[in-house]
Amino acid sequence: MKRELDALFRPRSVALVGASANPSKLSHVALQNLSTGHFRLYPVNPKNQEILGLRCYPSVLDIPDEVDLALISLPAELALEPLKECVRKRVGVVIVTASGFRESGDEGARRERELVEAVSGSETRLLGPNTMGILVPSIGLDTLFIPRDRSERPTAGSVALLSQSGAVSVSFLERARGAGVGISSCVGLGNMTDIDENELLGYLASDKDTRVIAIYLESFSDGRAFVDIVQRISPRKPVVILKSGRTQAGKRAASSHTGSLSASSEALVDGALAQAGATRVYDEEELVDTAKALAVLGKISGDRICVVASAGGYGVIAADLIESVERGAALSMAALAETTQRSLKGVMPGFSSVANPVDLTSLVTDEMYDSVLGVIQDDPGVDAIIMSLELQPPNVTDRLLEVAERRCRSGRTPIVVSVFAGERTDEVVKVFGQHGVLAYPTIWRAVRSLGALARRGSHLNMRK
Amino acid sequence: MKRELDALFRPRSVALVGASANPSKLSHVALQNLSTGHFRLYPVNPKNQEILGLRCYPSVLDIPDEVDLALISLPAELALEPLKECVRKRVGVVIVTASGFRESGDEGARRERELVEAVSGSETRLLGPNTMGILVPSIGLDTLFIPRDRSERPTAGSVALLSQSGAVSVSFLERARGAGVGISSCVGLGNMTDIDENELLGYLASDKDTRVIAIYLESFSDGRAFVDIVQRISPRKPVVILKSGRTQAGKRAASSHTGSLSASSEALVDGALAQAGATRVYDEEELVDTAKALAVLGKISGDRICVVASAGGYGVIAADLIESVERGAALSMAALAETTQRSLKGVMPGFSSVANPVDLTSLVTDEMYDSVLGVIQDDPGVDAIIMSLELQPPNVTDRLLEVAERRCRSGRTPIVVSVFAGERTDEVVKVFGQHGVLAYPTIWRAVRSLGALARRGSHLNMRK
Repeated sequence: MKRELDALFRPRSVALVGASANPSKLSHVALQNLSTGHFRLYPVNPKNQEILGLRCYPSVLDIPDEVDLALISLPAELALEPLKECVRKRVGVVIVTASGFRESGDEGARRERELVEAVSGSETRLLGPNTMGILVPSIGLDTLFIPRDRSERPTAGSVALLSQSGAVSVSFLERARGAGVGISSCVGLGNMTDIDENELLGYLASDKDTRVIAIYLESFSDGRAFVDIVQRISPRKPVVILKSGRTQAGKRAASSHTGSLSASSEALVDGALAQAGATRVYDEEELVDTAKALAVLGKISGDRICVVASAGGYGVIAADLIESVERGAALSMAALAETTQRSLKGVMPGFSSVANPVDLTSLVTDEMYDSVLGVIQDDPGVDAIIMSLELQPPNVTDRLLEVAERRCRSGRTPIVVSVFAGERTDEVVKVFGQHGVLAYPTIWRAVRSLGALARRGSHLNMRK
Repeated sequence: MKRELDALFRPRSVALVGASANPSKLSHVALQNLSTGHFRLYPVNPKNQEILGLRCYPSVLDIPDEVDLALISLPAELALEPLKECVRKRVGVVIVTASGFRESGDEGARRERELVEAVSGSETRLLGPNTMGILVPSIGLDTLFIPRDRSERPTAGSVALLSQSGAVSVSFLERARGAGVGISSCVGLGNMTDIDENELLGYLASDKDTRVIAIYLESFSDGRAFVDIVQRISPRKPVVILKSGRTQAGKRAASSHTGSLSASSEALVDGALAQAGATRVYDEEELVDTAKALAVLGKISGDRICVVASAGGYGVIAADLIESVERGAALSMAALAETTQRSLKGVMPGFSSVANPVDLTSLVTDEMYDSVLGVIQDDPGVDAIIMSLELQPPNVTDRLLEVAERRCRSGRTPIVVSVFAGERTDEVVKVFGQHGVLAYPTIWRAVRSLGALARRGSHLNMRK
């Protein structure tokens, strides 16, 4: 079934209104970024015949083709007329990027009402204004006006982001890239004058490329509708949300940022999101961390965690972070079965601890770690494992990375890796991410992700 | 005044007992790491005449020099005799690295008592057993048995670490290096059979190279003495502590790791540490983050924070993290003075927010950011500033890094930078650290550090 928003997510033809031949202009950057996409591209600018080797048209009305998606890259006061032309052209979706609308006071609010009137009752839908637009890596759709050498884009993958902040989008995309997480699409919501977060959620719900939906929101267009749709989506697709404007200061800041007024009480929002099965997070790093966990593992079926480390100290810190309610994830340390402990004794150094946390000591070898993970994956009393992977012990080699990957991808008890590899840590985490291994560079981020996975598992169980 | 522990921190001569000629042995790695230090070095091993070009002695007793510090790098069951020889030689401090003592059961406990008896009443002090020893970058003292290419060492600086876990030490050193934080010394406490954390704290209290003391501890040798000494030190030197074994699972894990039994109640420990003026942290990343904040800024004089960002979304997230008590640092957003807001209007784009958070929008330039910081540093109602530094906006250049550095080091209102620079972020944070600028790669870590600095400021005020 073809849907209206396909014009936004899967356009066959894209027009860029206000395309500039001047490389220092944002609209030139956007044209450059769009020029490698898998769709027909039409720059629009009455002053130019050709830009970047592409024929340039005076108006969208002059383009001898249907236009699915148009990007209007002009200042706020110049956006209305081109938008009206797009409506006449029956463009599917128009993105208005400029700021200077509702968020900037009365004059801007009047301008925004004019945009609404222009599309009202037409076949044309409006994304924005005040948005960076859309990124769909799989088809090279990239309306972001940031040069790629300033902010490299992630690869195609299964995580979608809806975001009311361009900067949060950029940070998300950069972190996703660094973590080896692929993106299905990233949409800047802007002022949500026409297309809003709920409609986009509805689209992503049945988008087969999207397995996890991440959201940054400062205010709801319609809170009740949002909760309803999340409740409907979340059993099949995890939804993780960074909802800011939690405090009075945050609400005031959101109001001057996106012109949005969030009257909703924080306790109410929190309860509603939890009941709908959304995972709530609190900063830009946790948003990517959690989306990654949900994309790689989805859930864990209980809260009994086993920690395996060659560094005793990490085992102790992990145990605290797992069990602590106030300063931790409120999970529990698994009690290992007698048979598990006996098997561990057979493969570990004499004076190591075969209780949980399992302490391999600095005498650890790749083979020892492999055997120990195998034994623990056999214990039905363990719902997930934290593997503290340290590359410093003398008898450990890079083959331990292969061991980790094989054990993590075995389809048996889920494993989250916390990586301690000095200056190589970030690279190891990234490659693991690309290979479908859930890994983080600190103990807390590994434990925190297990917390999110356990809450999702428990929520799904309750629904049964 | 010369003190006993100078032999540990400032040895003029070091013996390595059990030095091996075999490059795959830990004791060979330790010898290599020690060989570039600023002290006389004597390998001891009856089987060799020379190792790494150094003359090798059959026993410490054969060394024709006074020995300040001896490192015994032999298995647990072979450590006692060399220790006795060190006592006869009147070595100042002996480090026994091996594990397999109290932490490993009854047999080990017996061995540990023998070590104690050997040094009891002598002029020789014992560090360990079960420790990595000591790192003092300024004199190249490095007993760590990890090759430097597996774990690069930080530079000399003002932060000392006392740690009951070798892995936490290594992680701390690697993170410090990555954050541009210099280290005065790092001591592995091990089983604290003789020299314990309290004696080391006493030494560091008057060590002129040390300005901040970081501690990882699983149990106190004497909790009351610890609190007393921290209370005495902390007005002059900030103390930050990661005390693990907070939960029942953590306590059990600590017991099998370092053989320590922590009976103390968590609430009691927490209260005592807070009253003593120590800053408590909860994971290995926060330990370095907080030590860095204390080393660079020491404290802030109040809790009124102003946020400046070119990304509106970051401003909103920061405001929430600053004010939220449950999911934040429980600080407050400063109310900017009328005069400040007037001045800001003069230097910012028309529709930007001149309230707090100050939103420079994507039209930000280096000069604009500079002027805005200057105006806010003049506002007496602001105790500290979070500068969200984004390198993606089109009119920002690398000169913004210079602006940040100059403003941060102006000696006026303290600034913490949260850096958003894509793949360059880690490098920017590191260089800032080396230049005495407090910077972090996420908003939360910047806000959290301000929380620690404000608590310290408030603690110091209460003492007045």
